[in-house]
Amino acid sequence: MPQTPRVQLLLTGNELMSGDTVDSNSATIAHRLATLGLAVGRKVTLGDDPAALVAELAAMARDAEVVIVNGGLGPTVDDLTAAVVAEAAGLPLAEHPEALAHLERWCAGRGLPLDGANRKQALLPAGCTILPNARGSAVGFAVDLGSCRIYCTPGVPGELATMLEPVCDDLTERWPGLGAVDILRLQTFGLGESTAQQLIADDNAREHAAPWPPAVNLGFRAGAPQLEIKLAITDPAAAADRDACLARLEALFGDHIIGRGDASLAGELLALLRERGLTVATAESCTGGAIAAALTRVPGSSAAFEAGYVTYSNAIKTRTLGVREETLATHGAVSEAVVREMATGALERAGADLAVAVSGVAGPEGGTAAKPVGTVWLAWGDREQLDTVCLLWPVERTLFQTMVAALALDLLRRRLLALPPLPSYARQRRAA
Amino acid sequence: MPQTPRVQLLLTGNELMSGDTVDSNSATIAHRLATLGLAVGRKVTLGDDPAALVAELAAMARDAEVVIVNGGLGPTVDDLTAAVVAEAAGLPLAEHPEALAHLERWCAGRGLPLDGANRKQALLPAGCTILPNARGSAVGFAVDLGSCRIYCTPGVPGELATMLEPVCDDLTERWPGLGAVDILRLQTFGLGESTAQQLIADDNAREHAAPWPPAVNLGFRAGAPQLEIKLAITDPAAAADRDACLARLEALFGDHIIGRGDASLAGELLALLRERGLTVATAESCTGGAIAAALTRVPGSSAAFEAGYVTYSNAIKTRTLGVREETLATHGAVSEAVVREMATGALERAGADLAVAVSGVAGPEGGTAAKPVGTVWLAWGDREQLDTVCLLWPVERTLFQTMVAALALDLLRRRLLALPPLPSYARQRRAA
Repeated sequence: MPQTPRVQLLLTGNELMSGDTVDSNSATIAHRLATLGLAVGRKVTLGDDPAALVAELAAMARDAEVVIVNGGLGPTVDDLTAAVVAEAAGLPLAEHPEALAHLERWCAGRGLPLDGANRKQALLPAGCTILPNARGSAVGFAVDLGSCRIYCTPGVPGELATMLEPVCDDLTERWPGLGAVDILRLQTFGLGESTAQQLIADDNAREHAAPWPPAVNLGFRAGAPQLEIKLAITDPAAAADRDACLARLEALFGDHIIGRGDASLAGELLALLRERGLTVATAESCTGGAIAAALTRVPGSSAAFEAGYVTYSNAIKTRTLGVREETLATHGAVSEAVVREMATGALERAGADLAVAVSGVAGPEGGTAAKPVGTVWLAWGDREQLDTVCLLWPVERTLFQTMVAALALDLLRRRLLALPPLPSYARQRRAA
Repeated sequence: MPQTPRVQLLLTGNELMSGDTVDSNSATIAHRLATLGLAVGRKVTLGDDPAALVAELAAMARDAEVVIVNGGLGPTVDDLTAAVVAEAAGLPLAEHPEALAHLERWCAGRGLPLDGANRKQALLPAGCTILPNARGSAVGFAVDLGSCRIYCTPGVPGELATMLEPVCDDLTERWPGLGAVDILRLQTFGLGESTAQQLIADDNAREHAAPWPPAVNLGFRAGAPQLEIKLAITDPAAAADRDACLARLEALFGDHIIGRGDASLAGELLALLRERGLTVATAESCTGGAIAAALTRVPGSSAAFEAGYVTYSNAIKTRTLGVREETLATHGAVSEAVVREMATGALERAGADLAVAVSGVAGPEGGTAAKPVGTVWLAWGDREQLDTVCLLWPVERTLFQTMVAALALDLLRRRLLALPPLPSYARQRRAA
């Protein structure tokens, strides 16, 4: 048996072929396997076609030591995985006592009868190993097909995530050489992936730069609005290398780093506010509530966020936040003077310690020569000092709203940490 | 040549294997091909491994009449598609004049030099057909491998979407029998997929029910918060069948249908408001700005949406919306009396014609025996009449916020259309 097994995935379901479901399960599987130092070499997706599934599975079992099958474990007639695996492995289907006991408990807990459709989920390839399902009715299972270990897992994302634990236990039992790969994630905001890669390449090209240690793999995951930097340490003895790389990345990316793990701009800002006993209010025009919504998605946000004002029209800016009609008439709604008055109004009306105000042209309509689509003014700060900036960020409406809302949160985070006010993204897009 | 070709997809890229990118391109391809009556039979995803890609492509070309390759067309060394296809098809790589002209135009338009990395994108299998790229630097291309037509398309989603047009043109030229499948989509809110399927099954099982016409395929796409129902009409002569099926679905799903195509709750509500010259204001506690954000994501929302108040704390409910301290003390923030006063305050302060107010326990903390996590009160209406309802919807925080925000929009939509106030979802979850 090789020290590191080759892994393939077989994803099943007509909804994956029609495009009505976008597969995120294979990402979940790849991320979990990466912590064992395993990479997925190939994945195949097929509809609910038993003959095609049997042929594919048999072919995969010849080329890989591990196959993970995802989907097709449920109670309906489309759920073919048990029958397909039994046929490919030349095993009869049999009612599995452990699976049946699980189903009985599951149905009893919900006051449901154990009917034929449900009972079908206990009919598994004879002699298989059960993979418990902590969340759903269908257990998973593992069988050997020649020298290949086949794991069958559920398509429901939450059920899959928990079932990967017994899968990984079984893997490490069979391949004791599999490492506990240490994966460290840094969340950043304000840099694109290509800029981040260039920063690292330039750093590596410096004279006397230490070579990047081979035990530390670097990866990126670009999202909107955050960019994740991932360090995978494949050798447990390389902890010192990891710390050196981390220090190097921290020096390179500096205040663009929001935090580790799943850190988010809203979460980090709220944590800083709570730490210091401060509160924040938002005054939004073009982002239309997206800043408030990002803050309140975080559990416990009520400790630091009390009030948000979505003041879309001029009249409401005046009535709700006290923006002067004269200011609106003279400078227009998208102006430094207006965002200043919006922020001041939010601070006063909410009695908050900090505020951020945003007014811009999200498009696709509403642009002018002087203020084209993508123009946005932001003001942020406290009663003593409000800072302002104007950016030009001409992207599609929803992306504009997402990025501007994230920037608003970042500006407050930077202020609380006494960092330079503008991340790289914003500096490049500065319009006034 | 068969009348309907068998289609397979080959997706390439290390980022797809590591799970750092979730593939939505294959859904885009499947949806576009469905309008020609073509279904994707199998898809394979591989990393940037030339030998594996060549072997896979050769195998696919033996089993399918059409293979669409996605990814690997860019300027970097990881972009291997042209070389892989050339090797699999036994063709030399040659600089293609049409591709080179495209690159020259693309670089000139951006003031960029045509450097070696960019120029690599003109190096294509000799004799291939160019698929123009309206958005990016890399053209796509098509070649024949035996009896299989291979289309190579870019991984950037926006570029792929536009390039599918010349792909489909080439397909219909080669397979003139391919239909123009008519796909009709209905957007619904307030029913789960299983309830929807059961409704249809029950309807089909009625005595004297007309059999469902074979030329009309029915599909579902479950999203949060909406459920899409899809009718694909494979036979152009079946227009009458389509209309009959549509009428049947409209009778079955009734006021759960929001609209056709890409209709959204926020978009339909805003269209109704604009039609009638009305405006709306929102007063949000537990949804934290999600209702306002949903409305303002729609271009042109400013015509009917002026003001949103995110009043998270009791003090702000009083200060911003005029909710009486006595009401809060007597009934608590999650109560009928408080959402009534929030809605009234929003109507008055915004000078809006309609308002919706929401207060609930989004969790995971903050629940009590009397008001557990998932409890939510809503009030909606105008100065003359406010309706209220209390629901218990104990799901994860973000899903709770999404579904409650959608329900708030639906309650207003229903009121404007004089429909029964509660969709099926909400009736089942009624708590008071």
